[in-house]
Amino acid sequence: MKVSAPKTVNIHETALAATGVARHIHPIAPTAWAAPVLWLTGLSGAGKSTLAIGASRLLERRGFRTIVIDGDALRAGLSKDLGFSAEDRAESVRRASEVAALCSRAGITTFVALVSPFEIDRANARAAVGGLFHEVYVDTDYATCRARDPKGLYKLAEQGKIRNFTGLDSPYEAPAHPDLVVSTMSEDPAASILKLATYAMHASLHSPLESLPAASA
Amino acid sequence: MKVSAPKTVNIHETALAATGVARHIHPIAPTAWAAPVLWLTGLSGAGKSTLAIGASRLLERRGFRTIVIDGDALRAGLSKDLGFSAEDRAESVRRASEVAALCSRAGITTFVALVSPFEIDRANARAAVGGLFHEVYVDTDYATCRARDPKGLYKLAEQGKIRNFTGLDSPYEAPAHPDLVVSTMSEDPAASILKLATYAMHASLHSPLESLPAASA
Repeated sequence: MKVSAPKTVNIHETALAATGVARHIHPIAPTAWAAPVLWLTGLSGAGKSTLAIGASRLLERRGFRTIVIDGDALRAGLSKDLGFSAEDRAESVRRASEVAALCSRAGITTFVALVSPFEIDRANARAAVGGLFHEVYVDTDYATCRARDPKGLYKLAEQGKIRNFTGLDSPYEAPAHPDLVVSTMSEDPAASILKLATYAMHASLHSPLESLPAASA
Repeated sequence: MKVSAPKTVNIHETALAATGVARHIHPIAPTAWAAPVLWLTGLSGAGKSTLAIGASRLLERRGFRTIVIDGDALRAGLSKDLGFSAEDRAESVRRASEVAALCSRAGITTFVALVSPFEIDRANARAAVGGLFHEVYVDTDYATCRARDPKGLYKLAEQGKIRNFTGLDSPYEAPAHPDLVVSTMSEDPAASILKLATYAMHASLHSPLESLPAASA
């Protein structure tokens, strides 16, 4: 586990555990079900945020409650104290996974769009979220992302102005067994969005925390 | 500001700023409005989580999308690397405020139930969330919380088994100008919950990011 060790001995937590106050670990699912987490991984420029936003909108119009948590939003807020070293990426992924777990348990279909290049970090995220975690591999190759370069990052990285850039001087470990693969190279973006939204809807009907209603005569 | 300094120079962020990629800072409000954040502060055992959960349920039944983020859930996940020193409390409050900001921008009425004893940390949280931040003071005094002691923490603290315990060997700075005060000493809990839910509904109609619809003849 790459999870950071506690900074201080947390006596409260021990006390909490002793008194059995686990009621908030799976807190407060006001909708009485927990929603899936769609974890989109892929290179910068692969189309993760675009697909997540598109699928989120499709689902919202159909009454689903959704949220999109993407790398830029995290870097601007929750993870703004973190850089791009392997250790900091691990912590950034950990925080994203904990936010996703909170939202999921509140019945919010959660799209996380984050490069998250390391298999171990994604495995830890899956462990934090539980059975509702779905790994979505946005399979867009380096050459395609580099040609798109929507934020100008590839240019800066190849000029040596950005270090630890995924795909260049920092590795991307593609998922070995993703739950879903979308390719923005071979598919129309609208088709990828529909595929993702369809998958998310399907996943939402298989919440492990909810039993099926009994059929009535 | 008690916000941590970046651990590494974030060249990506600089590059992002240069290319104007601010689109995700206020991302993705699929409901096209941002929901209020109700930030409940008060001593341990004051009733913060109980009131937040109660108000959340009332709102959910009326079609609002809500989430409750409380101290126990944070300590079990997102902030499990943090202790109870002033510095760690500041970071825990910062993370909670960033999660609240993300949820708020996704149209989710967000209840944060966190001791958050220091005025400066709550001021930083207000700054992170913006105009949708509402400080709710759950005004329950030490003697009452100590008598309730639902988690057995007061007993442990007075035995010296917990340090930095708010109200005992760590101060609680009551809000000077809270947006709402609820007292679980003088009010019936149901009345406090109704008061909080009413306030939250009212706040939701005053989202600074939304203009009022034009009246039609």
